[in-house]
Amino acid sequence: MTVSENNFALTLFSDYESSARSYCRNFPAVFHRASGCYLYDQHDNAWLDFLSCAGAVNYGHNPVPLKDALIAYLAADGIQAALDMHSVAKAEFITAFNTIILQPRKLDYKMQFTSPTGTSVVESAIKLARKVKNRTNVVAFTNGFHGMSNTALGLTGNRDNRQNAVDAHVFRLPYDGYLDGLDTIAYFEKLLTDNSSGMDIPAAVILETVQGEGGINVASKTWLQRLHALLQRHDILLIIDDIQAGCGRTGHFFSFEFAGIQPDMVCLSKSLSGYGLPFSLLLFKPQWDQWNPGEDNGTFRGNTSAFVTAKAALEHYWRDDTLSLHIFRQEQVVVQWLEEIKLRFPHFIKQTRGRGLFQGIELYSPELAKKITQRCFAEKMIVERAGDRDQVIKIMPSLTIPEDTLVAGLMILERAMEDCFSEAPATSQAVTQDILCPTGGVQ
Amino acid sequence: MTVSENNFALTLFSDYESSARSYCRNFPAVFHRASGCYLYDQHDNAWLDFLSCAGAVNYGHNPVPLKDALIAYLAADGIQAALDMHSVAKAEFITAFNTIILQPRKLDYKMQFTSPTGTSVVESAIKLARKVKNRTNVVAFTNGFHGMSNTALGLTGNRDNRQNAVDAHVFRLPYDGYLDGLDTIAYFEKLLTDNSSGMDIPAAVILETVQGEGGINVASKTWLQRLHALLQRHDILLIIDDIQAGCGRTGHFFSFEFAGIQPDMVCLSKSLSGYGLPFSLLLFKPQWDQWNPGEDNGTFRGNTSAFVTAKAALEHYWRDDTLSLHIFRQEQVVVQWLEEIKLRFPHFIKQTRGRGLFQGIELYSPELAKKITQRCFAEKMIVERAGDRDQVIKIMPSLTIPEDTLVAGLMILERAMEDCFSEAPATSQAVTQDILCPTGGVQ
Amino acid sequence: MTVSENNFALTLFSDYESSARSYCRNFPAVFHRASGCYLYDQHDNAWLDFLSCAGAVNYGHNPVPLKDALIAYLAADGIQAALDMHSVAKAEFITAFNTIILQPRKLDYKMQFTSPTGTSVVESAIKLARKVKNRTNVVAFTNGFHGMSNTALGLTGNRDNRQNAVDAHVFRLPYDGYLDGLDTIAYFEKLLTDNSSGMDIPAAVILETVQGEGGINVASKTWLQRLHALLQRHDILLIIDDIQAGCGRTGHFFSFEFAGIQPDMVCLSKSLSGYGLPFSLLLFKPQWDQWNPGEDNGTFRGNTSAFVTAKAALEHYWRDDTLSLHIFRQEQVVVQWLEEIKLRFPHFIKQTRGRGLFQGIELYSPELAKKITQRCFAEKMIVERAGDRDQVIKIMPSLTIPEDTLVAGLMILERAMEDCFSEAPATSQAVTQDILCPTGGVQ
Amino acid sequence: MTVSENNFALTLFSDYESSARSYCRNFPAVFHRASGCYLYDQHDNAWLDFLSCAGAVNYGHNPVPLKDALIAYLAADGIQAALDMHSVAKAEFITAFNTIILQPRKLDYKMQFTSPTGTSVVESAIKLARKVKNRTNVVAFTNGFHGMSNTALGLTGNRDNRQNAVDAHVFRLPYDGYLDGLDTIAYFEKLLTDNSSGMDIPAAVILETVQGEGGINVASKTWLQRLHALLQRHDILLIIDDIQAGCGRTGHFFSFEFAGIQPDMVCLSKSLSGYGLPFSLLLFKPQWDQWNPGEDNGTFRGNTSAFVTAKAALEHYWRDDTLSLHIFRQEQVVVQWLEEIKLRFPHFIKQTRGRGLFQGIELYSPELAKKITQRCFAEKMIVERAGDRDQVIKIMPSLTIPEDTLVAGLMILERAMEDCFSEAPATSQAVTQDILCPTGGVQ
Repeated sequence: MTVSENNFALTLFSDYESSARSYCRNFPAVFHRASGCYLYDQHDNAWLDFLSCAGAVNYGHNPVPLKDALIAYLAADGIQAALDMHSVAKAEFITAFNTIILQPRKLDYKMQFTSPTGTSVVESAIKLARKVKNRTNVVAFTNGFHGMSNTALGLTGNRDNRQNAVDAHVFRLPYDGYLDGLDTIAYFEKLLTDNSSGMDIPAAVILETVQGEGGINVASKTWLQRLHALLQRHDILLIIDDIQAGCGRTGHFFSFEFAGIQPDMVCLSKSLSGYGLPFSLLLFKPQWDQWNPGEDNGTFRGNTSAFVTAKAALEHYWRDDTLSLHIFRQEQVVVQWLEEIKLRFPHFIKQTRGRGLFQGIELYSPELAKKITQRCFAEKMIVERAGDRDQVIKIMPSLTIPEDTLVAGLMILERAMEDCFSEAPATSQAVTQDILCPTGGVQ
Repeated sequence: MTVSENNFALTLFSDYESSARSYCRNFPAVFHRASGCYLYDQHDNAWLDFLSCAGAVNYGHNPVPLKDALIAYLAADGIQAALDMHSVAKAEFITAFNTIILQPRKLDYKMQFTSPTGTSVVESAIKLARKVKNRTNVVAFTNGFHGMSNTALGLTGNRDNRQNAVDAHVFRLPYDGYLDGLDTIAYFEKLLTDNSSGMDIPAAVILETVQGEGGINVASKTWLQRLHALLQRHDILLIIDDIQAGCGRTGHFFSFEFAGIQPDMVCLSKSLSGYGLPFSLLLFKPQWDQWNPGEDNGTFRGNTSAFVTAKAALEHYWRDDTLSLHIFRQEQVVVQWLEEIKLRFPHFIKQTRGRGLFQGIELYSPELAKKITQRCFAEKMIVERAGDRDQVIKIMPSLTIPEDTLVAGLMILERAMEDCFSEAPATSQAVTQDILCPTGGVQ
Repeated sequence: MTVSENNFALTLFSDYESSARSYCRNFPAVFHRASGCYLYDQHDNAWLDFLSCAGAVNYGHNPVPLKDALIAYLAADGIQAALDMHSVAKAEFITAFNTIILQPRKLDYKMQFTSPTGTSVVESAIKLARKVKNRTNVVAFTNGFHGMSNTALGLTGNRDNRQNAVDAHVFRLPYDGYLDGLDTIAYFEKLLTDNSSGMDIPAAVILETVQGEGGINVASKTWLQRLHALLQRHDILLIIDDIQAGCGRTGHFFSFEFAGIQPDMVCLSKSLSGYGLPFSLLLFKPQWDQWNPGEDNGTFRGNTSAFVTAKAALEHYWRDDTLSLHIFRQEQVVVQWLEEIKLRFPHFIKQTRGRGLFQGIELYSPELAKKITQRCFAEKMIVERAGDRDQVIKIMPSLTIPEDTLVAGLMILERAMEDCFSEAPATSQAVTQDILCPTGGVQ
Repeated sequence: MTVSENNFALTLFSDYESSARSYCRNFPAVFHRASGCYLYDQHDNAWLDFLSCAGAVNYGHNPVPLKDALIAYLAADGIQAALDMHSVAKAEFITAFNTIILQPRKLDYKMQFTSPTGTSVVESAIKLARKVKNRTNVVAFTNGFHGMSNTALGLTGNRDNRQNAVDAHVFRLPYDGYLDGLDTIAYFEKLLTDNSSGMDIPAAVILETVQGEGGINVASKTWLQRLHALLQRHDILLIIDDIQAGCGRTGHFFSFEFAGIQPDMVCLSKSLSGYGLPFSLLLFKPQWDQWNPGEDNGTFRGNTSAFVTAKAALEHYWRDDTLSLHIFRQEQVVVQWLEEIKLRFPHFIKQTRGRGLFQGIELYSPELAKKITQRCFAEKMIVERAGDRDQVIKIMPSLTIPEDTLVAGLMILERAMEDCFSEAPATSQAVTQDILCPTGGVQ
């Protein structure tokens, strides 16, 4: 595609599209094509992508092997819409997922192809958990994000997204490290064993091992293991929402592999198709496959093109550990850089944290975080923020990013920080902290 | 694509895929490619499609103009995953939808690209309606189907799908013609004006003008007009779920056009992309666009490939009334045939009904309906059932079906009926009726 | 007690008591003592009582045999607060209720002494029904009133009382005669047998056989019998809320006796103690007694004084049919008078209706109804209104009222009507009707 | 009353009364009369009462001044049932409560006479809080008990009492001292200030300053003050449920006086009438009196007899600090004894705690707690247990108990402990602890 002759004005969108639109406000360009780590706008300007569509294109934009497979499939009139009927494309995906992902990890899961969105796979997981355990309550965590349909929204922590009429049968617990001195697992155990704790025994616990929208909060290996052991003692299901943290984002295919646990259910979506196509997969241990035929259903549950690209992605990226090793190497690059900038800017940076290529820089000031990402955008780089006040700069490049491109991106980000911090008042930290933590009270 | 050398066994699916799968149980083949009105299995057997993926491929499978546009877009590395950022593909779709669909019908709607499933667009509509009206209650109808996430499931009538923990803030009213002597609109008005009726004033009413899954139940023009007038008098939003009945299925683009009403919100999905790609669009009057930025969000809200095929579909099928006229002509063919078979088999057929190429044959016996569609499948034709006990045979061919193909399909169906009815006991009607309507009681 | 020297101003109450207070606004006097059909204010003015504390003092105020029993009990230091421990007073009540009420009617019920309010006995009934049937949904009727705690409020029809956060697991059905042409039982049966009706199979149906607050709406014998038969066929519990209509108000002890049905549960309160003491009793068939010890509990469940007066009431009023015969005779007096005034004022009176000494006059104009009861108050008579707009004048004298006192009261009411109607515009009926029933099909 | 000739068998109750009955199972006698600290059974055996009807007869059974006032009122035909109409009895109570209780404490509250049960006053408080703040969420605490109607049950912690269908809009927080290292106020503040905490801003927080049913858990002065300050900073209502801890149980009339805080709402019931009569009172700051007339209502909201005895109780016990000083002296007697027995039996007693005459002994073994109270019952003394496993022996004598009677009761209890502990295995503590706290970090 050559440079487009189109020249769409931004007002076209504000005139006709709902005010719910969001990312486009932070990145006000009109994009046209994409390849690898770069997006191109309608005037063919290139933008370095450190967002990866919130984790939906982990292997970069339009990876060639997947693109070739998809075009060949379309050209041959491969069946596209198939509901949940059997198709060759589905059979091939099932076989590949089983052979390449599940068996080597000694995981025994059945696969449910739910409606092809993250929120839908979460809805299906919770519905199934409530059914098989015949309990209504579900535990979710502070700063969790699980989607925006009713039940998923009930699990999601963000107050701006939630509404009054959401599914209220959720018990909220503090995530790992939420508050000094608060041991979530000990608290949870007390609530479970105390017959008057006010917590109904939950059907399931759902969590992200790294909270993406919540601000790149990381659950430790030990915490996950203690949680898993507790749940097993109390016959409660563990659901890992691996929609953003899975598909290699933390280095392994599943984000929970490092802890050696086997969740009862796993939610996958986003990068599962490898090509940005809507696609979702719910994995669960065979004993939980208690659905009646058609009890959970939806038109687009056989998104056949996604089967094709997903299979190609598995075969191309996960047959051996080449990609994993690349990710861990790049993680080292990022982590070393994070430590350096944290030392450089201790008055502005509260914490850096992450796993794999899922890293965050928490600033004391949300305003500065916004300024920095705007500065990056001016430098033709796309970086997003996360956290309850968007105070965390999110580093999520393509997992396949070459090291020099990665470093180039980090340099843009570092320069943006230098500029913004140098303009900021020296006292920003103390002032901001006071505003944020107005506690003290009568103590 | 030549005949595949693959030879997948059905056990692959039962071994690894969740028992929730449903359509594949009625149509136990492994499909490979598709074109127009035909599906082809892995051995290249052709199957005449009278289901059209429950309305997701109204223009037939893989229509050539759409396929060409899609392949060209992919080949040029057109951006695929874009979140809700601006893209050239989106700009072009917005322009086309506005020019070809909205303006000629004098409709003034803003567009929200919700998560790309039917259930998600319904969730977004209800969430918005509750917000703008600051009321929780929503009215839905007997036999309505609106999807399977929590809120949508609360609106859906089917007992097998619903679960205990669903959104309960729904007031159920009888659909047009639900019971002799019951005038829904008069009853609704009484409930609204009676201060002690027990119905909280609803934020919105949601309905399908033709209920698909519910059994091809048809709301009359007068009923829709009376309902609309009542809602306007009481400041209640009208939401038309046009996911299955829209995109031409009843002859016009929107199913409500014939009644001359302008709903406050319209839910579109299924055939909107024209290619079976996951895609959804919520339309609402500009005054209801009260979303905060990002208040309703999701990863796949910019399914760019779908923008491309959807735009091609609008340009190819809706620039003039050729397709509409074709649909109305085929409707006549079907209706005339329905009247004839109803006269032939009065002891087995309870009612025939429908609009456009959305027609149904309600049998007294669900078992016979099942047998007939199985007989059709044996004759390499795909016909599905609907209704609360799957007692309605659903006639939903491609809107672009040639008349001779249509007639050929009807003949297969008629022969299947002849065979099944001739084998059935002569008293089937009376017996079945007694079982189904065990009323009488103390009267 | 001689004429009190107290002289309390009404402002004492408005200054210190919550604005939730209600009856005192319609009857702005300060009452001091009461006896039989009369209340006496602080200046010893006598007021004829046609309200009977909304049915809480069916045998008149402070009936002597009950008063004597209560004073004797108190004087002997009879145990007052007893939680749900065994007491002689409870044993004597249980014995009397069993012997005098249940056995002669061939009713086999266990007794649960719930918290001593109407709303609490309803809460307990619904809680138990949901438990034993393991279903959440409950059917309640238009214009039903069952109390003001959360679950009871969910069942109650009145919009002014309900709030957003109430128990929403209620399916509302139209009461007998709610709308011309709407056969509730047929509609209900369709909803139960239609698998996609959107009504979850309910645990129970709760109703008043005569709706008090709802406007003295009367369920017919046939309707109750058909409902009961339908529920039995579908394994759904029938709960009669006999809080207002029971304890003789309709002539028999239970309001449902005339229909020959045996509900699964019966809620009693109000006049059960016979002396206006807080007291409630839930009856249920023995097979539903599935409570765990202490699963439903409350401090005042052994209101021992109420056991004492309730036992005295049973022995004094229900050992034979003297009271019943008296009620039916007075009913005749009232009904004959109602027919006459309806003939006299056809332009103002829409309908008269009732059972026993539970009668209502529905006016076209709520304003006139208010005026009439105010005129009665000025004539030292207490008459209340009911209905969704307080348009129904409620005739609820003591069941023990002498015939001449009853007639005297009716004459006061009739003169109030004459006065108010003569002052009202001649066109009141037509005008009001238009406002109230703005229907009329397509507009 | 002389020794009764009645001789009721316990089977009368098991045959006819619901299995929900509870206290009677622990105290299997048939009581007849009561006076001061003693109950008398049908054979006139005297039982020393260390339970005081769970706090409903704080001034002892049938206190003479109240009894005299009540009998005089009844003898004079004082109005009994009055709905919420004005009465002289109500006027006198309002005046007394204002003069004796509110004004000296500089408290400015309006009074709502809710339905006369604890659960109803809680329902009214929450309903009003949700209305005035236009928020649904309410915070309640671990081990809280607030009653058994739907909303109250949602607030109540005990799992055996709760059911699936309860009001779920409750956020549960750990009570003061719930877990070592967990600072509830800091956690609560984090949840409030973290925009993604998953806690909707609550309308109100409801708590008992000493949790009765929860196991005599005591909130500290500092904790209450910090909580109050936090709620004020965040515009959230503080509701004190003083149903069990109020009316002098902790030494002052209100249990929160010692902390110097002024809650937004206070729930009173149980001992408010002073005579065990059903009676409840909701106090709230005048600005929250936003009820519409009749928006919250109930038949027994004018329990006039209770006004009479409650006024007598205020005048007799609260005109000066005689009773308070007596309570504090007896508290010292109990606390000193508790410290001694704790030193004597460190292997059996986990903790002793309480305020005023509201004291508890937590044992390691619930079985031993049961045995001990059974032993007391055999010695003609009534002592109850509390806590999530009934492991806490509850010491709640009459507030007016003479010191020698108190000591006599403590001696009975001490002997029961000696006996039961001497029979118990020496290793009870360690063994039990292991079972109860099967934790132990990472496993």
